[in-house]
Amino acid sequence: MELTAFAKEELSAFYEECLAKYRAYQAQELKLDMSRGKPAPDQLDLSRGLLDCITEADLKGQAGDYRNYGILDGIPEAKALFAPMLGVEEDEVFIFGSASLQAMYMTISYAFSHGLMGNTPWCKLDKVKFLCPVPGYDRHFKITEFFGIEMINVPMDENGPDMDMVERLVAEDESIKGIWCVPQYANPSGISYSDDTVRRMAALKPAAADFRVYWDNAYCVHHLNENPKVILPILAEAKRVGNGNMVYLFGSTAKVTFAGAGVAMMAASRENLADLTRALTVFTISFDKINQMRHVKFFDGKFENILAHMQKHSALIKPKFDVVLNTLAAELKPLGIGSWTEPQGGYFVSYDAPAGCAKRIVQLCKEAGVVLTGAGATYPYGKDPEDRNIRIAPTYPTVEELQQAMDLFVLCVKLAAAEKLLNN
Amino acid sequence: MELTAFAKEELSAFYEECLAKYRAYQAQELKLDMSRGKPAPDQLDLSRGLLDCITEADLKGQAGDYRNYGILDGIPEAKALFAPMLGVEEDEVFIFGSASLQAMYMTISYAFSHGLMGNTPWCKLDKVKFLCPVPGYDRHFKITEFFGIEMINVPMDENGPDMDMVERLVAEDESIKGIWCVPQYANPSGISYSDDTVRRMAALKPAAADFRVYWDNAYCVHHLNENPKVILPILAEAKRVGNGNMVYLFGSTAKVTFAGAGVAMMAASRENLADLTRALTVFTISFDKINQMRHVKFFDGKFENILAHMQKHSALIKPKFDVVLNTLAAELKPLGIGSWTEPQGGYFVSYDAPAGCAKRIVQLCKEAGVVLTGAGATYPYGKDPEDRNIRIAPTYPTVEELQQAMDLFVLCVKLAAAEKLLNN
Repeated sequence: MELTAFAKEELSAFYEECLAKYRAYQAQELKLDMSRGKPAPDQLDLSRGLLDCITEADLKGQAGDYRNYGILDGIPEAKALFAPMLGVEEDEVFIFGSASLQAMYMTISYAFSHGLMGNTPWCKLDKVKFLCPVPGYDRHFKITEFFGIEMINVPMDENGPDMDMVERLVAEDESIKGIWCVPQYANPSGISYSDDTVRRMAALKPAAADFRVYWDNAYCVHHLNENPKVILPILAEAKRVGNGNMVYLFGSTAKVTFAGAGVAMMAASRENLADLTRALTVFTISFDKINQMRHVKFFDGKFENILAHMQKHSALIKPKFDVVLNTLAAELKPLGIGSWTEPQGGYFVSYDAPAGCAKRIVQLCKEAGVVLTGAGATYPYGKDPEDRNIRIAPTYPTVEELQQAMDLFVLCVKLAAAEKLLNN
Repeated sequence: MELTAFAKEELSAFYEECLAKYRAYQAQELKLDMSRGKPAPDQLDLSRGLLDCITEADLKGQAGDYRNYGILDGIPEAKALFAPMLGVEEDEVFIFGSASLQAMYMTISYAFSHGLMGNTPWCKLDKVKFLCPVPGYDRHFKITEFFGIEMINVPMDENGPDMDMVERLVAEDESIKGIWCVPQYANPSGISYSDDTVRRMAALKPAAADFRVYWDNAYCVHHLNENPKVILPILAEAKRVGNGNMVYLFGSTAKVTFAGAGVAMMAASRENLADLTRALTVFTISFDKINQMRHVKFFDGKFENILAHMQKHSALIKPKFDVVLNTLAAELKPLGIGSWTEPQGGYFVSYDAPAGCAKRIVQLCKEAGVVLTGAGATYPYGKDPEDRNIRIAPTYPTVEELQQAMDLFVLCVKLAAAEKLLNN
């Protein structure tokens, strides 16, 4: 029977029963942090070979001595390795340092201070807006918020953002300069954009000449299942319809090799890269080419070896996703409390609680020793208008810890839902 | 006899003689690039141990698992290693990625877009100015030029910038927001700031609350001689007179270990670091902590091992500085053509040609196959008002190549000087 169908006394009894269990949890003094999408130690172990896979000889590469200055845009060997990952040509790739977030920040910061391709710098405009498919990635929203950019929520469904809304808004409002997208295994919903969504995104007709699609393909090789659907290559699609300059792509090996010490990359049309290089050539002499070569050697220069490596990640984290999904299904489905996604890859499960319950659930978990991503974090300004969405990050804890945490989580959901119903 | 004392016919004969030699050089088809201060391959060999000096176990550090996300401001082991290098407390250090230039760009970019410590963002001001001791580092000037900052030349002497001028200007003009300094073995003059200069710099009374001294101590351990003079620690001096928030320090191991793959760092008051962290926490989750730990292990966590390592660099590059200085002394001193510095460390020798000759000398060298740093590059906007200064970067070529290049250089100086006198 669904919780909403419970009679008042049944609900009270249910609440008391949950509360007793909750107090027992509190007595256990759990200490689990599930707030961020971090790889677990056993995933990091998979890349131990990175630590000693290069020799001095390897650093005499196709384009010179990689121990020295120079080669701002990245070594050709790394471009060749990562171009197929991003679905672009090798000369459309720019290899950065260790974090794609830095590349995103730089593109926004450059547009703010100097303007893209000769357009007015955003700092000189009264209003700049971004479209933000929700729920989304809090660190994207932080960048745009930091630069005073007004963020407009765009709802997502299982095919991606509401493209009718996106098409209409970008066409009519010149102050809309960008849209944040995580096209594959979106953070946090885990959904992947349909071919139709990608094609419509690539074919947008924005009013603003400096509108860009910020395509953060952070999870493009992070499959959980066999024969994964790979999303359409947006840059090729955009070029096909004469929109080649409208897309910036971002990627990294942060969740492939070492988080924070991987290789980040960007892809864009040659014209866009030349434009961004105006800033990048002032920003630095070169990025860490030794770490680039380390990655090339570790994967023997072959994209298929990245895919094979990711299967090992998958073997470690799929059981964790199963814990989350099985526990939600067993405990919440019969009671009809909330809804959730069943991702085929990526790092998160997105749980939608009954309206007005998300903050309370996160608080209850915290008070019993399990820290979740703050409720609201998946929305611009940290404001989830219905207080529903919670991002569950299953990868970091062990399977046993995760089961504990999920048992507590579903209990907190039940408590919060029952509270809400009792107080109505 | 000095060249200016030559009779007309003597001068013509001298010129013809030089021209014949020059043509012989051209026939050799030399190909040497001395345009940048790059370490030579044998210097880079000194750091081969960096490539395999860490194991997985080393990455479980004082502050956690360094293979994972987190620790934005750098690992404590790296702070402890580099604090004495910068002459600051450990908690005044922030460890960046691989290039200190990125840290400088970020501080300027942050001041431009957001303002320092609540001051008006520079993008909202009509005019922002920087003092630029000249000759100076072209990449500093590029950053300020890129952000539309007006640069004011400040002459340097053997003690550093003209402090009377600096004190007067910063006190009277609120639009002056910074001064670029390379305090030890300045780029390109090689001079080190006197104690008096450092104390006066630390005690400036700027009109602007967001005025900062941008103290790029890139060559603080790059001594060429025994018992080097170490400059006063400016942050301590500034704190002593209540000016602790007026200084940003920058450093890196770019010319200690691998150029472009070293560790960059910044130091500032805790209040300044907290302010900059507003931007840095949006910019990235963390920098490459594995490379930080690699450096800690390579130097066994001890600053004195960095100093010992730098003595090996010195042994390799001092003979090159000798080639430059000996050739200038032997060939140009008797003729009284130009003047130059005799640095005790760093990466450059600064040569001042007779007025109006620098561009011509660089051009003549280029046409005979030796590329020097562009004349004017050591001045803001690339404009050397007297067309005199040339930066000589001796480190990259072999001793033999360098001797060839210097023989050509002095020949080109003679040619250009003679041309000038003949045309007057």
